[in-house]
Amino acid sequence: MNAYEQMTKAEREAELKKVRAEFDALCAKKLSLNMARGKPGAHQLDLSTDMLTIVNDPAQCKIDGIDARNYGELAGLPSAKKLFAEILGVTPEQCFIGGSASLQLMYDVIAKAYTHGLRHSPKPWAREDHIKWLCPAPGYDRHFNVTKSFGMELITVPMLDDGPDMDMVEKLVKDPTVKGIWCVPKYSNPEGVIYSEETVRRFAALKPAAPDFTIMWDNAYCVHEFEGEFVPFPDIISLCAEQGRPDMAWEFASTSKITFPGAGISVLASSLDNLAYYKSLATFQIISYDKMNQLRHVLFLKDKAHTLDFMKKHAEVLRPRFHCVLEVLDREIAPLGLAEWKHPKGGYFVSVNTIPGLATRTWELCKQAGVTMTKAGATYPNGFDPNDSNIRIAPSFPELDELRQAMEIFCTCLKLAALEQLSA
Amino acid sequence: MNAYEQMTKAEREAELKKVRAEFDALCAKKLSLNMARGKPGAHQLDLSTDMLTIVNDPAQCKIDGIDARNYGELAGLPSAKKLFAEILGVTPEQCFIGGSASLQLMYDVIAKAYTHGLRHSPKPWAREDHIKWLCPAPGYDRHFNVTKSFGMELITVPMLDDGPDMDMVEKLVKDPTVKGIWCVPKYSNPEGVIYSEETVRRFAALKPAAPDFTIMWDNAYCVHEFEGEFVPFPDIISLCAEQGRPDMAWEFASTSKITFPGAGISVLASSLDNLAYYKSLATFQIISYDKMNQLRHVLFLKDKAHTLDFMKKHAEVLRPRFHCVLEVLDREIAPLGLAEWKHPKGGYFVSVNTIPGLATRTWELCKQAGVTMTKAGATYPNGFDPNDSNIRIAPSFPELDELRQAMEIFCTCLKLAALEQLSA
Repeated sequence: MNAYEQMTKAEREAELKKVRAEFDALCAKKLSLNMARGKPGAHQLDLSTDMLTIVNDPAQCKIDGIDARNYGELAGLPSAKKLFAEILGVTPEQCFIGGSASLQLMYDVIAKAYTHGLRHSPKPWAREDHIKWLCPAPGYDRHFNVTKSFGMELITVPMLDDGPDMDMVEKLVKDPTVKGIWCVPKYSNPEGVIYSEETVRRFAALKPAAPDFTIMWDNAYCVHEFEGEFVPFPDIISLCAEQGRPDMAWEFASTSKITFPGAGISVLASSLDNLAYYKSLATFQIISYDKMNQLRHVLFLKDKAHTLDFMKKHAEVLRPRFHCVLEVLDREIAPLGLAEWKHPKGGYFVSVNTIPGLATRTWELCKQAGVTMTKAGATYPNGFDPNDSNIRIAPSFPELDELRQAMEIFCTCLKLAALEQLSA
Repeated sequence: MNAYEQMTKAEREAELKKVRAEFDALCAKKLSLNMARGKPGAHQLDLSTDMLTIVNDPAQCKIDGIDARNYGELAGLPSAKKLFAEILGVTPEQCFIGGSASLQLMYDVIAKAYTHGLRHSPKPWAREDHIKWLCPAPGYDRHFNVTKSFGMELITVPMLDDGPDMDMVEKLVKDPTVKGIWCVPKYSNPEGVIYSEETVRRFAALKPAAPDFTIMWDNAYCVHEFEGEFVPFPDIISLCAEQGRPDMAWEFASTSKITFPGAGISVLASSLDNLAYYKSLATFQIISYDKMNQLRHVLFLKDKAHTLDFMKKHAEVLRPRFHCVLEVLDREIAPLGLAEWKHPKGGYFVSVNTIPGLATRTWELCKQAGVTMTKAGATYPNGFDPNDSNIRIAPSFPELDELRQAMEIFCTCLKLAALEQLSA
């Protein structure tokens, strides 16, 4: 029983009146605050200012025996592959460098599965009658939407404290129409969960019925600790190889939340056979992604050690924002028992699970009060959260004082939603 | 009858001996020269050096009310759309800004036709039994290979002096399985032909049986004159609209041969309805292409007038290279009557048509002598030139003295191939 349920009817009516008055006062301020997207703020963007002019002379453009300005090198600059390989714990030959969005590489792997099939596909997925895809939830809406946009049936797999419910995953992959799964293995979006080593090993040991079952391993937050030291993480690709399914995993990462979100570089990593197959199709599609931007990143980030040092500067900006969110939730919501949340140490989100039935109404009330949140339900396949409970808070973009205001509003809206529900 | 045919047998044997000795002497030099690809040379890349540091302050990154460093703006910076719109004679709203390769946008339109269908498609092309695609030839191998990689049947349409054979195109589009055509309307690759206004109007007036028949209008050389003034060119998109098929044409262009080939920006332009449809699918694929590079281009190229001025600097570099190619051909080959070629005023190629049966052998001999040329046949669908006659010369990359050497070798090889043929 939460605090409001324990109240007498009269107490509750008084409380509703009080909270509604607070809400009305907030609306009257006509604020416009945004906690919707995991979008770095201006302070973070300014950290990479030196990258703007780091390449300033044509002589620098010759790297690895290649003129980065000119055509060529489908899979990217060897130096860029080396940088990502060290960060991900794979080999440079396992890397293909993409453009500003790893999402584009993920989409492309799925698109190629549809138009041409993957290495072990009996036929292109476009010729399959029905395809199912596993979606650990709460999860990342853009992931779910990629597979949905190709007409797949999305199957929800609950997220536990150490990753997706692997008992369920192991059961579901026995269905040959289940072709793959989305994963954000480190600081999962939105819960900030780090998959346990056991979970990672169970992924690698999967024996799916579909020969072309595909683990989409989006390591978006691989170096994105904002609290404490870098957490090493196992390499899914070599683990899959050890377990006899070397082509099962495709890993992705990017510098979107390291340098510039709108002008980063991305990487796809997989087995050498998958890479060779992917390149045999990509050669019809592109000469190479932007190699000058790869060069800028190589010179700016240098190597894994330097990248980790640099990420500490992001941590300095992000940490107080996360502390602010958690502090307001702990103060305003915890005593009432209206919601639960984790205390992530990396990634970009705080995931709030309200008591059932409050998420959509809280989101609506926030909107009325001028606070834009990720749409309730967005963290579930097809935008439908069966408990109407999960709300994703993205604290990175607002200034700290704005964030504090937005969080106060959020808490007021959540309280109001809870009181309305009890009074209905 | 060419000069060699007019010789007596004895004269020809003497000539063969002489030319073979020249060839052997050239081989002994163990040269390594490359005329294979339309790849700008170092002098051209150096023209854009100022672009490296043109964005050097975070304050510059706010443009059109957008922070170019951050996420957002799927279709690109409004300023970048405006720049391309002015160059192509379309509206900014008709433009979608891509990454470093317009090829990627072209591939993507075809890929989306396969996975989702285009606006007027009865069904996704992946569900069609058989698709045919028109390929004006000689043409661009990367175009042909895109459609081939999706399993289409490629139909050759001869290139005439004013564009593709439109009588044949008008006949072929009556077949509902013919879904589209590749076009390089200005300074066609490789012949440097500018489509006549009548040809462009006949394209716009096509009434294909396939409701989703698609004109892929690759305006790759839209501002790429190296001889004389800029040649204005009609806008295919508005012409198609006038003729009642507003969604028939997709136009493409890029800065690959204006700034940096490996780090340019590209554009897709089409009807507003096509753009809306494309964006409704692309929103699942990418947040936006690299906006910082769009910003650099906007600041560096400014507008159409400034871009045309800048292209004159490229012309200064390219013109002597084209003159060199034509001068050697005119001196060595014209008197013998072994081949014909055009005298283009823009674009990146000289297209040589030998008497039948000499292209492959000439290419092989060039290779032996250390000169890499575009593979014979590459300018035809499926890499098969029925006359074995067309050879594409790309003069941009080598230094002028290397180019002269390479052309002397090319002419020796062509002569040797002709003499071998007559002696066989």
